[in-house]
Amino acid sequence: MSDKAIAPQALLTRLAELICEFDTSKINDQAISLSRTAIIDTIGVTLAGVTEPCVTNLFKVLGVGTAPGVSTVFGTAIKTSALDASFINGVGSHAHDYDDFSQPMGGHQSAPLVAPLFALAEERGATGLKLIQAYIVGIETEIRIARAVNFYHYDKGWHPTATLGVFGAAAACGYLIGLDKQKMAIALAIAASFASGLKSNFGTMVKPLHVGQCARNGLLAVLLAESGYDANPATLEHKQGFLNAFNGPGNFNADLMFENWANPLEVLSSEMGLKQFPCCGSTHPPVTMMLKLRKEEAIDLKEIAKVDVLVHKRRLPHTNNPNPQTPLEAKFSVQYAVARALVSGAVRLGDFEGEAHFDADVRDIMAKLSAGPHPDMADDSPEQFGAEVSITLKNGQVLRRKISNLVGRGITYPMTSDEMWEKFNDCAKAALPRADIPPLFERLETLEKATDIRAVAKLLVKRALPGQANRGATHIDTSGGGNGTNVLQETSWVP
Amino acid sequence: MSDKAIAPQALLTRLAELICEFDTSKINDQAISLSRTAIIDTIGVTLAGVTEPCVTNLFKVLGVGTAPGVSTVFGTAIKTSALDASFINGVGSHAHDYDDFSQPMGGHQSAPLVAPLFALAEERGATGLKLIQAYIVGIETEIRIARAVNFYHYDKGWHPTATLGVFGAAAACGYLIGLDKQKMAIALAIAASFASGLKSNFGTMVKPLHVGQCARNGLLAVLLAESGYDANPATLEHKQGFLNAFNGPGNFNADLMFENWANPLEVLSSEMGLKQFPCCGSTHPPVTMMLKLRKEEAIDLKEIAKVDVLVHKRRLPHTNNPNPQTPLEAKFSVQYAVARALVSGAVRLGDFEGEAHFDADVRDIMAKLSAGPHPDMADDSPEQFGAEVSITLKNGQVLRRKISNLVGRGITYPMTSDEMWEKFNDCAKAALPRADIPPLFERLETLEKATDIRAVAKLLVKRALPGQANRGATHIDTSGGGNGTNVLQETSWVP
Repeated sequence: MSDKAIAPQALLTRLAELICEFDTSKINDQAISLSRTAIIDTIGVTLAGVTEPCVTNLFKVLGVGTAPGVSTVFGTAIKTSALDASFINGVGSHAHDYDDFSQPMGGHQSAPLVAPLFALAEERGATGLKLIQAYIVGIETEIRIARAVNFYHYDKGWHPTATLGVFGAAAACGYLIGLDKQKMAIALAIAASFASGLKSNFGTMVKPLHVGQCARNGLLAVLLAESGYDANPATLEHKQGFLNAFNGPGNFNADLMFENWANPLEVLSSEMGLKQFPCCGSTHPPVTMMLKLRKEEAIDLKEIAKVDVLVHKRRLPHTNNPNPQTPLEAKFSVQYAVARALVSGAVRLGDFEGEAHFDADVRDIMAKLSAGPHPDMADDSPEQFGAEVSITLKNGQVLRRKISNLVGRGITYPMTSDEMWEKFNDCAKAALPRADIPPLFERLETLEKATDIRAVAKLLVKRALPGQANRGATHIDTSGGGNGTNVLQETSWVP
Repeated sequence: MSDKAIAPQALLTRLAELICEFDTSKINDQAISLSRTAIIDTIGVTLAGVTEPCVTNLFKVLGVGTAPGVSTVFGTAIKTSALDASFINGVGSHAHDYDDFSQPMGGHQSAPLVAPLFALAEERGATGLKLIQAYIVGIETEIRIARAVNFYHYDKGWHPTATLGVFGAAAACGYLIGLDKQKMAIALAIAASFASGLKSNFGTMVKPLHVGQCARNGLLAVLLAESGYDANPATLEHKQGFLNAFNGPGNFNADLMFENWANPLEVLSSEMGLKQFPCCGSTHPPVTMMLKLRKEEAIDLKEIAKVDVLVHKRRLPHTNNPNPQTPLEAKFSVQYAVARALVSGAVRLGDFEGEAHFDADVRDIMAKLSAGPHPDMADDSPEQFGAEVSITLKNGQVLRRKISNLVGRGITYPMTSDEMWEKFNDCAKAALPRADIPPLFERLETLEKATDIRAVAKLLVKRALPGQANRGATHIDTSGGGNGTNVLQETSWVP
């Protein structure tokens, strides 16, 4: 035996190899289907997000979204650089906190990926299948890193959607344009130096802002690596590197990044799912059961004596809010969400706008509704997202529905195409004319067959109506601050 | 006494008040002079930096530096948005690691500020005095935060120039455009969520990249606050906020942010200084003494028998390199730097390029030179940056010079105007024609009297020569990656 120790490969060099040599034969039809569904869902919530203040404020900032380019800001007439489209669409994708989520990531897995993948694919050209493959690579990368650092990382205050999503975005974008292994490792090392986002800013516009930043920064890391930048591939394990700075010695297990890589694929995990309703995920199990009950039984609201909602006790501290006063509070009120489901037979974006949470019919039900911990669901049971709803009618009849666990709508309990359409349509109408939504949805339903993403992206453009400015629905206010000069009129070198 | 506890103000609200109500009467002539000198020096090193690969690679990235705008990329013909000019100039300012540094910050204090201040002042208009005041506010902010978090922050792996500089950039830019207190607190809270940069990427292009990112992000935080963004002003002290996530409980003292705020001004501190030479700061004390000795004595190199260099022992581990093989190694060789000073009477950028470190005359001196720890400078003495050089001539005569402490060239030992010019000219010639440098330097020497920064910035533009592309010295390569589309020709909505 030789005395010489073989220097271990840098972690990001190992990851880069796995990414660049990703075995696409592992991507079966189910993986394609689940990924396509997640991408469609992310596009939907982005269309709902781009008219929110966290996005429309961006258009007031000189130099954001103004770089010339061919990448679409979803639901607008704006075309800009892939970098800026990634930023703006990234913010939009998380504006409503309505995008899919992953339990091991402790965050939202698709939002960091879809915006930069579409923006880059529009710039460079790519098939739908290649985009889906790159998405799957991005999911694998960010969730594998999450397994190595969570939940210490999450509990410490980092926002994993951003601090880990930046690696996913870099991996996905690098894969899409075919970076070689060396450059992929550099891109990931640059991404580590860009990782940022604090949970202390949750509850403000900065939460979705984090997602736009990580989407843009992950793509920028790739473009810098492509341009000839260098970086240190040992930047994860370095004593002054990502793992030690973000988590600290002893608070991570780097081996988990590689253990059973893509075997099975992370996109096939039952620990992730879509959000069917635009309110706190902890309310989804009882809402789902109430919708099921309402659909399967003929219920006359006037005949209801009382409603009981029982959930796992972990779901209650942040959702036990019998009298919400604002739309945001309503999103975290299991009482309102379940009553709304019973009254309306759906829970939609409009139910968390304006005064919708004071609706008289819903408040009537809320007055008869009580919520509490389910006595049969132990603290450590696998029913962490379990729920049972029961309606007692005035004639004494009791109607019940129960589900043992529902971590979003994912592989074990997928949304139907009708449910997908229902959510997508509800979201997209915020930005696009109603008539433009069905052709978009149908085109996305066979995304893996698209020969060029640019043809798909055309359907995401808001067509300018006669008399409208080319910038579409957005309002550009450059007069807001200081003695502002409208730079759009003063550029010297752009044709 | 009332039972009600008064809720303490959020830390960033307190900081925002101090920033917005900064007492400009404290800014005396010396503060103006030191700040102006630091700004001139930063502009100089930026001009030297913009032709380096860490900057020229940026021009290969689609969407970087292409947003229309009026802000100058120093030493080029490029005008772009303030955001992108901040990014590119920010990278350039730290490209050579030749910019000024602060001992309490554990980093470089001016580089995060000068790029965004100039870019923003070109966009909005500002006097030279207002820009200098904003610079002083930025220095105060970032170094006060540094005093609260260092050196735990530094040792942990964060790159303080970036992770703390982002607050300085936000404070300076917010002050320049007159953000109110509430928006200033929001800008600082957004900046906290943007803070990033790992020391594991030192020694690569990512180190200066961090500076460009923090410069751009600090400005972006201000523009977002101005646009109507919200954020959590308690984001420093929040249990999942900046102090706990970056440093961890018990590893900071937030009170130090406010103790003796601006009293005296941080810009008057003796703990910061300019780098007179483009090599490791630890070599500067003996280099300075060798230049002094050479200037004050007539020395015939052929008559030298031996050279002894004694420095504080802390300066040696990273600079004791008697036989450097690359320009980078030469920057960290006290033997080369001191020998070069003796042979050339100066230490310039060109001395760390190509094969300069193999120069025969310098190598002759290096063969006679020994370096070691000074026996009279104890570990804990105040002479942490002390040095003594001595030359023994063949006739037995010994010539010596000694300095007790030299943390850069700062308030206690300022560079003369001639020394400033010498460095500035050596730097600026990388980007500007020689004839354009003296008028620029002279204009900057009375920066506080400038009525509009735009007139100053005009002197930083590289004038296009006949036949040259308008983008100046930089080469745009859009053919490098994938099936690239040159978006510059395809923009639809920019006039």
